[in-house]
Amino acid sequence: MKKHNFYAGPSILDQSVIKETACAVLNFAGTGLSLLEVSHRSKEFDAVMTEANQLFKELLEIPEGYEVVFVGGGASMQFCMVPFNLLNKKAAYLDTGTWSSKAIKEAKLFGEVDVVASSKDKNYTYIPKNYTVPEDVDYFHYTSNNTIYGTEIRKDPDVKARLVCDMSSDIFSRPIDVSKYDIIYGGAQKNLAPAGVTFAIVRKDALGHVEREIPTMLKYTTHIDKGSMFNTPPVLPVYSALQTLKWYKEMGGVKAMQKLNEEKAAILYDAIDNSKLFVGTAEEDARSLMNVCFVMKDEYKELEAQFADFAIKERGMMGIKGHRSVGGFRASLYNAMPKSSVEALVACMKEFEQKH
Amino acid sequence: MKKHNFYAGPSILDQSVIKETACAVLNFAGTGLSLLEVSHRSKEFDAVMTEANQLFKELLEIPEGYEVVFVGGGASMQFCMVPFNLLNKKAAYLDTGTWSSKAIKEAKLFGEVDVVASSKDKNYTYIPKNYTVPEDVDYFHYTSNNTIYGTEIRKDPDVKARLVCDMSSDIFSRPIDVSKYDIIYGGAQKNLAPAGVTFAIVRKDALGHVEREIPTMLKYTTHIDKGSMFNTPPVLPVYSALQTLKWYKEMGGVKAMQKLNEEKAAILYDAIDNSKLFVGTAEEDARSLMNVCFVMKDEYKELEAQFADFAIKERGMMGIKGHRSVGGFRASLYNAMPKSSVEALVACMKEFEQKH
Repeated sequence: MKKHNFYAGPSILDQSVIKETACAVLNFAGTGLSLLEVSHRSKEFDAVMTEANQLFKELLEIPEGYEVVFVGGGASMQFCMVPFNLLNKKAAYLDTGTWSSKAIKEAKLFGEVDVVASSKDKNYTYIPKNYTVPEDVDYFHYTSNNTIYGTEIRKDPDVKARLVCDMSSDIFSRPIDVSKYDIIYGGAQKNLAPAGVTFAIVRKDALGHVEREIPTMLKYTTHIDKGSMFNTPPVLPVYSALQTLKWYKEMGGVKAMQKLNEEKAAILYDAIDNSKLFVGTAEEDARSLMNVCFVMKDEYKELEAQFADFAIKERGMMGIKGHRSVGGFRASLYNAMPKSSVEALVACMKEFEQKH
Repeated sequence: MKKHNFYAGPSILDQSVIKETACAVLNFAGTGLSLLEVSHRSKEFDAVMTEANQLFKELLEIPEGYEVVFVGGGASMQFCMVPFNLLNKKAAYLDTGTWSSKAIKEAKLFGEVDVVASSKDKNYTYIPKNYTVPEDVDYFHYTSNNTIYGTEIRKDPDVKARLVCDMSSDIFSRPIDVSKYDIIYGGAQKNLAPAGVTFAIVRKDALGHVEREIPTMLKYTTHIDKGSMFNTPPVLPVYSALQTLKWYKEMGGVKAMQKLNEEKAAILYDAIDNSKLFVGTAEEDARSLMNVCFVMKDEYKELEAQFADFAIKERGMMGIKGHRSVGGFRASLYNAMPKSSVEALVACMKEFEQKH
């Protein structure tokens, strides 16, 4: 049975990325050594790091004055790195879910945090509007895509404060205007690489304005100055990231990805909206293209376990269960997800609906 | 030409680890999905994490009251995590090289640091003796193996203070008495796994005695409480670590490794001591079994570049050049290095000597 990878993260990568990585594990760049055991100071790996950095910038059209760094620790480590490096007195945060809340918790260790709006009152099923970002804050932080609740902010916000965004789960899914941001960061394990590497796009002149002493590894300048090689980087995840970036370029870049993502999400949301059994959980104008969350309608709630069983065990729809905090179902449609898998899921939903 | 992997890190792993990892990249645990794209919350990966943790404890005979965590960020991140979690007022550090110095630099951000002894005066070619660790320090920190200078402390020290050790480059190379330590940490990319995962063995009752607020990701308890799954762990490096741990068990554990390491190092040190061209750089009683550092004798210095060329390009001795801060040569003989490669290096040295 073919397995369709709907996991929310770590999640689907293109087959070319998987194959190239498997080959490099056996023989990396013709060195006769495995990618697992090669020095990060070898000229072959140095070339990987350089190309990944260059292609990352090219694909996102990152302007002058920014640097991209690859570090370990996950986006969760960025939750403290951002305030460590940027927060003097006060920061503004938008609360759109679990990840935003975690980022807010860490920022509070470093200064005052103004939560400008929250959608917690309706279990994060919408994106707050009509909030104001004070001009006197050191930065405004938001999470562009909320994996657990299936909501997404796809428009780059206009704010006067410095802008910081956690784009862990929708980076490379659409063009972004990087010039509006001071830091964009994310764990790579959605649209970029296997787990173990985290990216940060940093506007260099946003740094150096806090007075606290920052531990070396938590300082963005450390990694910028050494081209992400201050210490041993996560070699294999960086290699796989490069393969994904190459695949994006071949596919036509982030604009092509956006088009595909819109098509894939439309197929699934249409099926949900026209279903007698299923209903989407996020408000329509907040719907994520990356994570489609849905549940059984109240009158069919008792069929949820049955559908999960059928979809996963009989139709190979892996990772289709919703996050434990919201229940129901979640289909993650990251960049590497082929349209055929989305169609297979829709067919599986219809088949189940006909039976019941 | 066969390549012999003498890199100082990332470095040689056993062929079984490489092959198992390559297979899992194509199909992980029969899931039909790649190890690169499988959820860390899947039952298959959960089993990997559990087994890695259990086997790690078993092989090092870690007593009750300790936990092992796997995190990202490298040993360099531990340089600040240790004082974040343990340093109230004053800590003692032994300075035996670059890594010790870096650890000292970070600790100074958190409190007073008493450098009890340093071998910097002779470019770290020896291990200081006859120093005293004050009893009123929060902990005493040392680096057991100094990759750059080829020195090693193989005896677990007896001190009254809490004991912390960076064992990045010699963990699993010999039995250790874990009960003497409060924290043992290390990057995994020497004797355990590909780069991207860091281990810490933590005595639980050493935690919770500092008053500062610690960012969530930098708190050992965060990772202990969640079994290294507070956030997405570096999935592939953890998988490879498990394969190495299994290989250790098969080989007879750390005692068997110690025997092999003593034999391998003896072969190379003997060759150096009996050579007309080469001379070891570390004092004899400080010599590392993991990193054998040597140079050409003064009268043959001009042959160094020639030997490097010959050894690397004509005999496949990869990574044999010394660290840029000391020059000369360094052969790293980590656990996975077969005796045959050490013999091949010795043969290559003798061949070169006969020619000159």
